[in-house]
Amino acid sequence: MRRTPPQSPAGRRDRPAYDRQSLLEVAVTVFNERGYDGTGMEELARRLGLSKSSIYHHTSGKEELLDLAVGRALDALFAVLDEEHRAEDTTATARLEHVVHRSVEVLAAELPYVTLLLRVRGNSAVERRALERRREFDHRVAELVARAAAEGGVRDDIDPHLASRLLFGTVNSLIEWYRPEGGLPVTALADALTAVLFDGLRGGAQ
Amino acid sequence: MRRTPPQSPAGRRDRPAYDRQSLLEVAVTVFNERGYDGTGMEELARRLGLSKSSIYHHTSGKEELLDLAVGRALDALFAVLDEEHRAEDTTATARLEHVVHRSVEVLAAELPYVTLLLRVRGNSAVERRALERRREFDHRVAELVARAAAEGGVRDDIDPHLASRLLFGTVNSLIEWYRPEGGLPVTALADALTAVLFDGLRGGAQ
Repeated sequence: MRRTPPQSPAGRRDRPAYDRQSLLEVAVTVFNERGYDGTGMEELARRLGLSKSSIYHHTSGKEELLDLAVGRALDALFAVLDEEHRAEDTTATARLEHVVHRSVEVLAAELPYVTLLLRVRGNSAVERRALERRREFDHRVAELVARAAAEGGVRDDIDPHLASRLLFGTVNSLIEWYRPEGGLPVTALADALTAVLFDGLRGGAQ
Repeated sequence: MRRTPPQSPAGRRDRPAYDRQSLLEVAVTVFNERGYDGTGMEELARRLGLSKSSIYHHTSGKEELLDLAVGRALDALFAVLDEEHRAEDTTATARLEHVVHRSVEVLAAELPYVTLLLRVRGNSAVERRALERRREFDHRVAELVARAAAEGGVRDDIDPHLASRLLFGTVNSLIEWYRPEGGLPVTALADALTAVLFDGLRGGAQ
């Protein structure tokens, strides 16, 4: 991610040239550092090197930036469910496993956006809508768990909603420590996480 | 947890009688709601129904309250490791499984304290010491995973530090949704979580 504001073609240091996407990137970084509620437009303007009125040229304000950011994370996660939903030639168990694996990849690819999404608390209309979409996501994963249990692919002694929460609790916990750059490759991480959750830490032993 | 300040024996509404523990309980609730950094002594005094000077009668300030709170969570978690460390008549795998199971119970019993601990970011000496103790905890769990792998009890194709992070990522994610009162009994939750992590979601099937 960019650490310094992009310069305008004329190279004037006092007026960095942002498009909507690069402005969003900086805003998300600041929201993650200071908390969304704790970030004022003044702070945002300072970090962007823009006047508040220049920010309003790009966006209607903080809430729209949050909406764009969490929308990006949610769209990427729902796209994983939708691509699996279309894969009708395979079992629900294989689809569920693939959803978990792909979600790790999405989390790594969209880390600042997913981090912001997972910290949303519901203090505004935008935040409540994001929480609503998160619940819808959990619900669709739980349905997939239930179908996987019905076909005998996963254990049926754990409530599908609880299973869904444990699976995505593990996936979501990665935002606390995983940094793609220079660390464990994301595919190795997704493989290990999926192996533990589906076959258990005891799985490969003996 | 108490939602209204305890009253003094004389019932004078303007001066609730706190001991150190009940003051800590309220402080932890406020820290969790507003963030530790976002909570000033004024807000704390208002929520306690005390003057700032009355708070200083009980404690040297906000940082000491944080220290007591995260210390309580850490002590409870280390006690789990220590009780397992003494159980030398059993396998490392059984001890690891028991550490995970007991940690879920500790998290539920000390939910506000563990929640605060897991949100500590390292902006002060107290917070850095808490992060240091969390790393020490992770390190000891990773050692236990390595011993369990060496005795053939758990798979040896996953790095012990990664396994430790996945196990406690799942445990820690419970603070996001689990509420002991009126919900799933904590033993049922700990059983389900341990079953998924050690035997896999596929474990009981087929």
